[in-house]
Amino acid sequence: MNLSANILGIAKKAKKASYQMALVGAKDKNQALLNMADALQARQAYLMKENARDLAAASKAGYSKALVDRLTLNPNRIAAMAEGLRETAKLKDPVGELLETIKRPNGLVIKKVRVPLGVVGIIYESRPNVTADCAALCLKSGNAAILKGGKEAIFSNMAIFKVLQSVLKKTRIPLDALQLIESTDRFAVHELLKLDEYLDVIVPRGGEELIRFVADNSNIPVIKHFKGVCHVYVSSKADLKMAHTITMNAKTQKPGVCNAMETLLVDRAVARRFLPEIVRDLQGAGCEIRGDAAVRAIVKGHVKNATKEDWRTEYLDLILSVRVVKNCDEAIEHINTYGSGHSDTIVTKDKKEAQKFLNEVDSACVYANASTRFTDGFEFGFGAEVGISTDKLHVRGPMALEGLTSYKYEIYGNGQIRT
Amino acid sequence: MNLSANILGIAKKAKKASYQMALVGAKDKNQALLNMADALQARQAYLMKENARDLAAASKAGYSKALVDRLTLNPNRIAAMAEGLRETAKLKDPVGELLETIKRPNGLVIKKVRVPLGVVGIIYESRPNVTADCAALCLKSGNAAILKGGKEAIFSNMAIFKVLQSVLKKTRIPLDALQLIESTDRFAVHELLKLDEYLDVIVPRGGEELIRFVADNSNIPVIKHFKGVCHVYVSSKADLKMAHTITMNAKTQKPGVCNAMETLLVDRAVARRFLPEIVRDLQGAGCEIRGDAAVRAIVKGHVKNATKEDWRTEYLDLILSVRVVKNCDEAIEHINTYGSGHSDTIVTKDKKEAQKFLNEVDSACVYANASTRFTDGFEFGFGAEVGISTDKLHVRGPMALEGLTSYKYEIYGNGQIRT
Repeated sequence: MNLSANILGIAKKAKKASYQMALVGAKDKNQALLNMADALQARQAYLMKENARDLAAASKAGYSKALVDRLTLNPNRIAAMAEGLRETAKLKDPVGELLETIKRPNGLVIKKVRVPLGVVGIIYESRPNVTADCAALCLKSGNAAILKGGKEAIFSNMAIFKVLQSVLKKTRIPLDALQLIESTDRFAVHELLKLDEYLDVIVPRGGEELIRFVADNSNIPVIKHFKGVCHVYVSSKADLKMAHTITMNAKTQKPGVCNAMETLLVDRAVARRFLPEIVRDLQGAGCEIRGDAAVRAIVKGHVKNATKEDWRTEYLDLILSVRVVKNCDEAIEHINTYGSGHSDTIVTKDKKEAQKFLNEVDSACVYANASTRFTDGFEFGFGAEVGISTDKLHVRGPMALEGLTSYKYEIYGNGQIRT
Repeated sequence: MNLSANILGIAKKAKKASYQMALVGAKDKNQALLNMADALQARQAYLMKENARDLAAASKAGYSKALVDRLTLNPNRIAAMAEGLRETAKLKDPVGELLETIKRPNGLVIKKVRVPLGVVGIIYESRPNVTADCAALCLKSGNAAILKGGKEAIFSNMAIFKVLQSVLKKTRIPLDALQLIESTDRFAVHELLKLDEYLDVIVPRGGEELIRFVADNSNIPVIKHFKGVCHVYVSSKADLKMAHTITMNAKTQKPGVCNAMETLLVDRAVARRFLPEIVRDLQGAGCEIRGDAAVRAIVKGHVKNATKEDWRTEYLDLILSVRVVKNCDEAIEHINTYGSGHSDTIVTKDKKEAQKFLNEVDSACVYANASTRFTDGFEFGFGAEVGISTDKLHVRGPMALEGLTSYKYEIYGNGQIRT
């Protein structure tokens, strides 16, 4: 069978299974997740054996140490993957939730009810645990899932998938509700992205390049989790000690993640008091500083020149661009111009100024007096995270189970006709 | 200036204005809408003069009578357009609504607040009143709007736009929050659809061809209002008198709209009792019938053969395809296979069967014992309608003001950092 026909077959089967999947109750879904967790741990030796094939290929290909680390499965990681499934089982089932009831003068009763999206395609990169995570989130939310992982992890992904499927056989969940694309040909993704008749949404999980590729080539709606160019703005009315703590946390606590700060904006009224010390401490933590002319005039030595390109850059590393702004308006304008609509914070003691910043910064998560690092499904209390959406449609900010649902209107009549 | 630069300039200005627009209060927006309504009526002579230029061109081009009718402005239609703006002014302002408050153990208070989408692009066809309708809905929901109407109505659209703009000058609404693309070159739409940096959503309003063109060519998220292939299923447990009334209403009350029935499914247990009479009455109302073999065996004469193509067709006309199904499951499968996910109804006295149909039919609006013709923003009590979404993301079914909004998280801290 050729690849196009193979992908089309997968999509058709998933679509058909999605109708049954939508009707599976919470109890059956949760039991399946718990059994999957047990099965992953019981099959640890098998998973590690298959993972070793990916690791051998990675070693032969000379992949970076970081990539090899992401690829690696070990007993701790398999236990964590199983624990993730058990946690997902504990979450409230979003399907069937009554969102609204409208009673019309003509007697019609309109119920807005939460339903699964249908078929969710997830395209991800090298971490094999994403296979189990995404399968669990899709099934819990009543969706059929088509998974396509990175080619580096293909043997690991196939093994995890096989273990999960073996559990499904003993449940009410249709086998076809969980599909893995085994081809490592990029053409497989191209083919999948055309099938808007069968897939309801595509969620790409990975770097900016992957997401851009998917968004540019998909006929299916895409929920994008683009880059996070996050800002901390230290206002003229900031508690500078708090500003220092938040700045250090937002930049250095975990610099490789999308909710870490990439640009620090400092009000000119406090720049001379705030900058020398924070730059010293950031540099002490190994952070490279790139400043505009005003920053470089205040902080002597070791500050590189920040270009316009820096304002738009997600470093995901210990690098920080720093700019002095003349007031809150200029900070807001900078963020709305160069930011990515992800997470931004103001440090200020002035409640009115804080509210202005919250109102006017056009980002998914806007903070007053807290680190940007809290933008996260777990930190928000959602119990799960599919990703952080920088889109404005459907879901914005941390995306959890509800983001994998839609709704329908169920309308109850007794013979009403339109006149 | 070349066309690309012109479109880019419009998009940039709209984006900039959208930040101000998001902050305009309900009172100012409503006053602007009321003043716009008055201005349209005060400038009736001007609007009709400009409309006459479109009508002259239409006559020269030999356009169909139906198209010329859609193009025509007269005092009644201008009054109706103004009344639409006054009705929009009365609606509740969706912006700023507090959707949820989450208090976290670390003291963070997370508020989920409704906000405008930002810049909304609306691409529509020949009715000039859409210019005023869409301007009003976008402004009321705090968005900047970029409007692109059909070339047949260009003089009418420019005139309406000019009148609306003249009112904006005296309000807090930034002039650039309302933009009209005056070029009638299709390349203008192509250019617009690329500008995902500036536009947040595209809403195409019109026929299937326009919507498909926009969906296939847009980098910007599109809210699609595709065709309505709506079904009435007459169950074995139907009140046949009610089924007759609903069938007649769903097909003949207004056959040219997306929520009219296109396919009638009749349970084989009642087919002999139900079909002869309903076919006679539908034919009496001028409706052509296309039936499967079972229908043609029961109803003698005048029934064309229905092909598979018919099951997928939105006639928007007095044509109906009819099929006999063996049970409710087969009806559901038919609808999920050939339908468009718009509106479908079951007629049955059995509550359990009704609920099964409501649960399993994967459409935006699923009815028990009522006509499909109620799928409409006004009939649902929303007070407005941008269109009927057959997408599952963001908005499904009748789309009103809320569909033109997103949300953001405003997070209040007192120095929280992530550990």
